[in-house]
Amino acid sequence: MPESVSAAIEAFAALPGIGSRSAERLTFRLLTDQNNLAVRLSSALTEMKNNVKECDQCCFLTDENTCEICMDTRRDTTKLCIVESPLDVLALERTHEFRGRYHVLHGVISPLRKVRPEDIRLTELYAHIEQLPDLNEVILGLGGSTESEATALYIMEQLRGRFSGHVTRLARGIPSGSELDFLDAGTLGRAMTERREW
Amino acid sequence: MPESVSAAIEAFAALPGIGSRSAERLTFRLLTDQNNLAVRLSSALTEMKNNVKECDQCCFLTDENTCEICMDTRRDTTKLCIVESPLDVLALERTHEFRGRYHVLHGVISPLRKVRPEDIRLTELYAHIEQLPDLNEVILGLGGSTESEATALYIMEQLRGRFSGHVTRLARGIPSGSELDFLDAGTLGRAMTERREW
Repeated sequence: MPESVSAAIEAFAALPGIGSRSAERLTFRLLTDQNNLAVRLSSALTEMKNNVKECDQCCFLTDENTCEICMDTRRDTTKLCIVESPLDVLALERTHEFRGRYHVLHGVISPLRKVRPEDIRLTELYAHIEQLPDLNEVILGLGGSTESEATALYIMEQLRGRFSGHVTRLARGIPSGSELDFLDAGTLGRAMTERREW
Repeated sequence: MPESVSAAIEAFAALPGIGSRSAERLTFRLLTDQNNLAVRLSSALTEMKNNVKECDQCCFLTDENTCEICMDTRRDTTKLCIVESPLDVLALERTHEFRGRYHVLHGVISPLRKVRPEDIRLTELYAHIEQLPDLNEVILGLGGSTESEATALYIMEQLRGRFSGHVTRLARGIPSGSELDFLDAGTLGRAMTERREW
């Protein structure tokens, strides 16, 4: 096999969820592709690595200093939603249910994986909160894992003294369309204890 | 979203088996990856597109004129296995059951998809066969689809007059480890009609 082909296969296989067979198939598809996909992918990746950085306000991704969401004057600056990763911003934007600002932590605190509070974007969070004078709600948009919950709890404590408005978190419960008997006890238990008036 | 990030997501999503969510996840993984994976992938793809071509004998992939398999003097030049794609060469090499030469067609004849006999590497196949004076077996290593079988039949006919040795094809039957009641009737039927003496 030509070395560049093996290198491409190896690089693909190092990505999450791509096994060695899929990596081979992707590489050969790119080799024989008529639409210059390999060149497009290659140059997008190079450009991305060279130009994309974290927004100086919310730590989302941008190729300017400040991201488009923070620059958008139509966004509601009374609400700030803290999320773990840039992917979570995309996921929440797709719901069209939130028009406020985000803050991306780029991780969660994890003693096991040696991620300390100073390794995620908390200093930037406190600065971001100070820059939003009419902020009245901070939404903890973190995931459902133990580490995420511990991080949310840590942030709650840190916000005391720094922020006097509402601190909320995403609702926990049964996912849309799910059947009860397929759900784990944790999810279902929480849906029960946090039940709401109809 | 920065344009290069969207471009990378789009390029990933254009690959077979990668949906838009996976494409996002792969792109963000590359953005935050510590091992320079994005750069490795990007440069492997560029190099691959610039340097990799078809072997002048067997049409497998190479960055020289002739591929390593055709250059390897220890390979058995009495046997030639015709396959559809470079991936099939890798798959057969992994079995360690074949030490002869290959010939890669880069496709199968398909009237539906407008692939004619002259669109696959048949001229190269006839030339390759002429270059192997002690060739005594041509193995039709094509897949099990109707198009593959029709292509194999077409090649069989074309080989008359060009090659006087044995023409064989891969055995058809039940896959290793499979249970009979999970198999389709075509596979099982063929395994029955082509049964062998124990």
